[in-house]
Parts: sequence; C-alpha cells; structure tokens
Amino acid sequence: MSKKYQVVGIGNAVVDVLSHVEDVFLAENGIEKGIMTLIDLERAAQIYAKTGPSTEVSGGSAGNTIAGLAQMGGRTAYVGKVRDDQLGAIYAHDLRAQGADYEVPMAPADHAAETGRCMVMVSPDGERSMNTYLGVSEFLTPDDIDEAMMAEADWIYLEGYRFDGPDSHAAFAKAIAACRGAGGKVSLTLSDPFCVERHRDAFRVMIRAHVDLLFCNEHELRAMYQDEDLSVVLRLAAAEVETVVCTVGAGGAYIWRDGAETHAPADPVQLVDATGAGDLFAAGFFYGELNGYNTFTAGRMGCVAAGEIISHIGARPQADLKSLFAKHGLL
Amino acid sequence: MSKKYQVVGIGNAVVDVLSHVEDVFLAENGIEKGIMTLIDLERAAQIYAKTGPSTEVSGGSAGNTIAGLAQMGGRTAYVGKVRDDQLGAIYAHDLRAQGADYEVPMAPADHAAETGRCMVMVSPDGERSMNTYLGVSEFLTPDDIDEAMMAEADWIYLEGYRFDGPDSHAAFAKAIAACRGAGGKVSLTLSDPFCVERHRDAFRVMIRAHVDLLFCNEHELRAMYQDEDLSVVLRLAAAEVETVVCTVGAGGAYIWRDGAETHAPADPVQLVDATGAGDLFAAGFFYGELNGYNTFTAGRMGCVAAGEIISHIGARPQADLKSLFAKHGLL
Repeated sequence: MSKKYQVVGIGNAVVDVLSHVEDVFLAENGIEKGIMTLIDLERAAQIYAKTGPSTEVSGGSAGNTIAGLAQMGGRTAYVGKVRDDQLGAIYAHDLRAQGADYEVPMAPADHAAETGRCMVMVSPDGERSMNTYLGVSEFLTPDDIDEAMMAEADWIYLEGYRFDGPDSHAAFAKAIAACRGAGGKVSLTLSDPFCVERHRDAFRVMIRAHVDLLFCNEHELRAMYQDEDLSVVLRLAAAEVETVVCTVGAGGAYIWRDGAETHAPADPVQLVDATGAGDLFAAGFFYGELNGYNTFTAGRMGCVAAGEIISHIGARPQADLKSLFAKHGLL
Repeated sequence: MSKKYQVVGIGNAVVDVLSHVEDVFLAENGIEKGIMTLIDLERAAQIYAKTGPSTEVSGGSAGNTIAGLAQMGGRTAYVGKVRDDQLGAIYAHDLRAQGADYEVPMAPADHAAETGRCMVMVSPDGERSMNTYLGVSEFLTPDDIDEAMMAEADWIYLEGYRFDGPDSHAAFAKAIAACRGAGGKVSLTLSDPFCVERHRDAFRVMIRAHVDLLFCNEHELRAMYQDEDLSVVLRLAAAEVETVVCTVGAGGAYIWRDGAETHAPADPVQLVDATGAGDLFAAGFFYGELNGYNTFTAGRMGCVAAGEIISHIGARPQADLKSLFAKHGLL
C-alpha cells in the first residue's frame, strides 16, 4: 500500500520580496552577490527602504520544491513556521492552492517575530542575491513535527537553510527518526555554500548517518568536502550517500548512483531570475524518481523544471511542468 | 515658478493578488469577466480559498498611474488609505520606492478593516476580472486631504472607483476646491462601466463643474452617456470637458480637444494581463502633456506605456518607460 505522502518537505517558510537592482546597489550596501545572507529585522528594514518597487511571491527553498511537486500531482506536505499575519496567510494559501498539505500551527499574531521574508535582489544578469529575515520560521520546534505525518512519508526532504535556528537539529532528528522508523527515506539539500560553512559538521554527521539522496550544487559540494576539484568532491559525496545529485548551472546536473555518473544536460534558457533553480530541479528530479523513470530522465526533468523557474521572476512555477516534460519528450 | 507636484492622485489603495484562472472558474463562482466587482471580507476569503497560488503586487488604479509617472521622473504624490499592517507597509514602500510622495497617515493596526486588496483573476486570453475588498481604503475622509498639497498640484487625478465609500464625495470636494483655488486643474478617470452605473449622476455633476481632462474607455463612456454609438458619446463628453481621452483597447485612443479628434494607434502587443492598461495609459499621456509634447505624441506615449503593462503580470511598470518612448521615436 502506498503511503499518504510521497515527499514531506521541512524548511524555512518565507515570502520572497523580489526587486531588480543594479550590481552597484549590492556593492554600496554590502550585499554579497549570488548567495543567501541572514539578516535581522533592523537590517531588513534598512535594505527594504532602499530597494525599488517589489513583487511578493511565496518562497522558501523546500516550500518551492513541494509546491512544484504538488503542481505535478505529487502527494506532498510542507512543514515550516509562519505567524498568523497577512504574509503568513498568503504563504499558507499558496501551498494549499497548489495541492500540498500544510498543517503546521501558525505562531500567534502577537508573537514577536513576524512571518519570515527573503529580499531577493535580482541583478541585470539574472543572478539573485538573497537577504533573509527568518522571523518566526526560525522557531520551528520538535513540537511542530508530526511523527504520524513523517511515518506516512516515502521521503522527507530537509532544507539545509533550516539548520539555522535554536531547535532545528532536534526537530530534524525527530522527523528523521519517525520517517526512518516507518521505512521512509531521507533527502537533504545543502542550500547554499555559506550555509554549508555554518553547519558543515552537522551536515556531515547527518549525511553519513541518515541521508539517502543528497541535492546540492557544485559550490555547495566544494564547500562541503573542502576541495576545488568537482570530480573529487562528487566522489567523496558518492562514497557516503546512495544518490548524489549535483547541479552545475547551465551545464545541467551530475548524478552519482551505484558507482556510476550520469550527466543530464540543461537546455539553453534566457535567465531572468535564478531564484528557485535548485529547488525546482529537486522537484523535477523527485517527479522522475517517484514515477519510475530512469536516472537520466529524472535528471532531465530536474533541468526542465529549473529552466521554467529561471525564465521568470519568482520561485514558484507559472507554467504546467508536466506539459513541459511532455514537450521535451520525457513522459 | 513650477509647483511642487505635477500630478497628485487620489484613489483606493489596494494590493493586487494576481492569479491565473480558467474562464469556467469565473462562471462557477459567479465572477463577472472583465470588470471590477466590490466584495466584502467574507466573500473575499471564500474566493481566495478557491484561487490558485498568487503573486502580490501593489495596485490601485490611481496608484498605478502615479507610480508610472513617478518612474518617468514626474513630480507626484498619492493619496489613499492603508492600515498599519504588512500589506499596508508594502503598499507605502512600493510608491515611495518609485519616487512618489505618500504621506497619508495609516489607519491604526487595530482598525477593523485591513489594507484593501484586489483579487485579479487573469484568464488565458489575458483579460482580467477583479474582485475588490476595499478594506480601509474605503474610509478615506476629508481629514486625509492635505489642502496645502492640493494647492501645490498642477493637476489632481481622481479615481472613479474612489466614489465608493462613505466620505468619498466630501474628500474629493475638498481636494478640488484646494487645487482649483490655487490655479490647479482637475482630471478624472471613469474607472469601470459598473462604477459609472453606480455613480453616474455624481460623475456628471463633477465633470460639468470641475473636470478639465477626462480619462475613460469606450465601455465607460457609453455607460456614462447612455448611448451605444462611440462617436456620439465622444461628442457628448467633448462638449462638457476641455480634453477627453478615450481608449479603445487594441485600437489605441481617441482624444477630443478644441473640437477636433486625434487618433493615437496602439502597437500590436502579446496580451498577458490587461490589469492596469488604462492606468498606465493615463501615466503616459500625462507625461506627454506635462512635457510639452503634442496631443498625438501624448496619446502614443499612453499607448506605449499601456502596452508595457499588459505584456506582463501586474499593473506596475517593469521596464523603463522613457526608454520605450525613445525606442518608439517619441522623445
């Protein structure tokens, strides 16, 4: 009998606040290009006051993956914390509207931290630089982890960013135990090279002990295994994890499994906004895996889903992903 | 000496909640296609729960016009009411970030009505159907009208939608008196055919007594003057107002002034989302008027600005409008 959920994602629930900036703006305001930096509310207010008109779209790395998979008909749920405020209501709506279950209780409206938000500053070249105010998403505790839900998951999908925050490790441990105990599998995304720097040891322990499927990009994998040679770090990861999926931007992705490497090439895409590329790659790859396609096809589905996301502003899909798979001859 | 403001807009401050729907969704939920319908909070919650994932962008008809004009370097201010909540903060930020003054005090956070929002449902053909919860924007009172600001305006721009609400007529009267008393001029947009039906008599009184420049589309003008023949209603309006600017969709716009008609054609555009077409037409036309271009050029600028807005989701400009004017040989 199949389980209720194919993938349950756990991550930081944040609303993306997207604006266009020139690179000089990043330099003048000390914002590092291309990566995610955590900021406090005061700094968030300072930067927000300086950025141009914005568009708000629900985001969060694992949230994007779950939304993408839900759009393709995947049985999914999401675990992340918002507050009972306007942005929290928007976040919950957008997940449920996409077909994902989302049952985590909202923090009360008088909680000192608001629903988290991520200022996504998109440069003319399409690269995005993220400044994140985690807000209440930081306060996800083991109490928010529903063990019955984790036991009903074929896969749990853990967001590396979620290693920040006081009770995050305990919450992950509870989720892993409940999932594993019921025969489920564990996937992890490394999220960001600086996130890897902050949590390398904890990531390493988790990878060795629990992770069956590791998502990453080349920068994160180099940071994780501290070597500049991609082929070296790929082999190091593959020695520790059943399946390693490493994206390399316009070059597509390398998938290591059973001692063999599969390369899935990406299609040329006009890059508008890189936000969510890795998240939707994971959604596409999961779709292939869960539906019995071979490794190459799953990788190609990841590339096609990522290609859709970077062709527009925002990290939630706007086109029907399965139609795109069909168009690329993958179904 | 030139005045501080070229245009001060007064309207309903609402955040647009944009989603894609099939036409059958509109039919099943009793939503009239292509027009703006006012709804209460309960109905708003019902419809929101049924719509798909959304994108939030600041909107409001006059707000869109002011934001567009501000982007082109126009000296502008906006008058509309939000609450001190997350969406209110977003609304204020997006106007100020575009360069417009926005000084109306926010309603306190404990006000029963929230910041207004407009559910914009975009059909596959690009037509938009709007369901608006006015929220606190309905409660703009004469106290919110700063007479000194109105006296410092070359033009005030009144949004027809703003005729809904208890103190709206008194607020407009105060703004008109202060502006006129200091030698300023008055413009009005009819907003929507059903809005015209609700307020025809009040519109008529204002048009005859105070309006120097009337913006409308063909449907609104027919509703206003109750005749199906566009040439008839154009002449009726032109007999009452110095300048009448009437958009006709893909056909561009007709401008009546000094007893003569000027036709400004529109360029072929791939319609993605019609939201804000009229609002940005007004911004482009104002830019031409304020900068000494002839009537035809001002009309063409309106068409080009409207063309930019309907080529993407959301009613705030994403491309540099003056660059587009240059590209079309209008500067």
